[in-house]
Amino acid sequence: MPELRKDPVVGRWVVFSPERQIRPERYVCEELPPTKPEDNPFLEGHEAYTPPEIYAIRPNGSAPNGPGWQLRVIPNRYPALRVEGNLDKEAVGFYDRMNGVGAHEVIVETPHPQLVLEQQTLPGVVRVLQAWRARMIDLSRDIRLHYALVFKNHGARAGATMPHPHSQLIAMPVTPIVVKEKLAAARAYFIEKDRNLFEDILKSERTSGERVVFENDGFTAFCPFASRFPFETCLMPRRQSPDFQTASDGELLLLAEGIQRVLSTYASVLDQPSYNLILQTAPFRRSRHPDAWSTIDSDYRWHIEILPRLTGVAGFEFGTGVYINPTLPEDAANILREGMTHG
Amino acid sequence: MPELRKDPVVGRWVVFSPERQIRPERYVCEELPPTKPEDNPFLEGHEAYTPPEIYAIRPNGSAPNGPGWQLRVIPNRYPALRVEGNLDKEAVGFYDRMNGVGAHEVIVETPHPQLVLEQQTLPGVVRVLQAWRARMIDLSRDIRLHYALVFKNHGARAGATMPHPHSQLIAMPVTPIVVKEKLAAARAYFIEKDRNLFEDILKSERTSGERVVFENDGFTAFCPFASRFPFETCLMPRRQSPDFQTASDGELLLLAEGIQRVLSTYASVLDQPSYNLILQTAPFRRSRHPDAWSTIDSDYRWHIEILPRLTGVAGFEFGTGVYINPTLPEDAANILREGMTHG
Repeated sequence: MPELRKDPVVGRWVVFSPERQIRPERYVCEELPPTKPEDNPFLEGHEAYTPPEIYAIRPNGSAPNGPGWQLRVIPNRYPALRVEGNLDKEAVGFYDRMNGVGAHEVIVETPHPQLVLEQQTLPGVVRVLQAWRARMIDLSRDIRLHYALVFKNHGARAGATMPHPHSQLIAMPVTPIVVKEKLAAARAYFIEKDRNLFEDILKSERTSGERVVFENDGFTAFCPFASRFPFETCLMPRRQSPDFQTASDGELLLLAEGIQRVLSTYASVLDQPSYNLILQTAPFRRSRHPDAWSTIDSDYRWHIEILPRLTGVAGFEFGTGVYINPTLPEDAANILREGMTHG
Repeated sequence: MPELRKDPVVGRWVVFSPERQIRPERYVCEELPPTKPEDNPFLEGHEAYTPPEIYAIRPNGSAPNGPGWQLRVIPNRYPALRVEGNLDKEAVGFYDRMNGVGAHEVIVETPHPQLVLEQQTLPGVVRVLQAWRARMIDLSRDIRLHYALVFKNHGARAGATMPHPHSQLIAMPVTPIVVKEKLAAARAYFIEKDRNLFEDILKSERTSGERVVFENDGFTAFCPFASRFPFETCLMPRRQSPDFQTASDGELLLLAEGIQRVLSTYASVLDQPSYNLILQTAPFRRSRHPDAWSTIDSDYRWHIEILPRLTGVAGFEFGTGVYINPTLPEDAANILREGMTHG
């Protein structure tokens, strides 16, 4: 059974999942070799090599766990957290722990082993976003779960161990520290100014324009003022909502366009970099904190972060939380805008 | 001029140092090839290829910037922060920035290009720690500087770009967020319990013993209860002090033994892993926050973290601040203790 433990100093939770140790190596530093078809459980016709599917898009109504799908969601074979069991929150002497109850799912974005997200058709990208939304809505009904993170590790340097295009979802019984910090900052800002922090960021970016990379009717993509990584991009919806799950099909189409434009520009300008894509959305469970988060509908906004992994994370970053970035976001945005025009 | 920018949501500072962009790549993922002697500025006799030395140990009284040294401290040729200039703290529209004033120094630990820290004689390791202390004391006198981080990136996966044994020091005009969080937690704990958080951690670890790796008269090395990384080790002094600079020569000797034992056990048990070593100590500037940190002498304690880089940092960790660790610290400590006995 995986286990969650809390750091007694900074309050950070760590997931201990000894079963993942059987993987030869989670983080391969070399370029990923293309998986031999016989070793790729994500291929069409290989459905028997994965756990039974949780969700799938099967336009011709084919039967579950067989061929005929455009997208499949399956449990991770080496899950960081498990659906079964009780939380059993407890003190261990001086420390705090609980069982690693949660979910760890893999969204297989396409049956095609080399069709990376930005090369999919626009409806193909929309399908991926719809799967994220469907899984979030379903998992939010499990009262043991407080938060779900959707993310995509693309390329060896970003932690991917399978080249077949996929994203992941991990749902947890705690609200993680990064989310708590953002919620607390958004709330403090709202209380002080009676304005939404993310709306103010968006306004500031759209007014100056120097860090804006792309815009359509629903979303603005920009390189954040204090980007941690060169060419880091944030995709922010212009409609206020704390929850990604509230995005309409129309909004997902606009978001899909934004993601596709940013990723295809990365691929051409940065020579197909490794990247992490992260969906930041509000926790499922918040009604129990009426004092703390009562204004969450007005003060927090979901958004997407895309982090190209051209630079590393080393002693300085771990010791300080400060990042060293050699590329100003104004320069990065300029290069990305140019690449987009000529792409 | 490098620049510091503050993230408007989480308050994290980012150092923008465009001059570092001229390095071909800060983070090489492949194993580092041994540097050709003619390309290694850290060799004895190559002093002219580095900026003038700031500090050196020259037992025979040899002249600065020539041969005859056991250890040299030099400015980083591609500094993240620079000593010259004013801070010029200012708002940029909605955002906050300041000039990247600070220091970025390289401690060349030995003239021998392959003599890794754990293979040095004990006096050799002590020299390294004395250099750290001397540089911290000197930099703490610059009132523009609030914090200095000493760290060591060893191996390609830990962000090292030079195989010649060295550590680094970066001094900053701000107190970084990781340090602020630890200080705040230590203070809250002290106010609540009238006890030192780090002393309680130490007591808990020494009582159970299951995560303790090594102990001598001054220090306890243990794998933290909520370790982020497999085989992560914390070296904690048993004498209370917030400041590494207060460590006596006797204490540095005991610390050197602890570091050497842990690193040489890593090398044998984990097959010479990449690792980050981080010195966590109190900020230089705190008298201006009498309310916030008045009890720092009793509530915070300096310590050292060593993070082997066997697993990666990917989308999940960036999105949540939660780490996934496949190895329980009890198992890690057991393996390290065994390795130490047989080593």
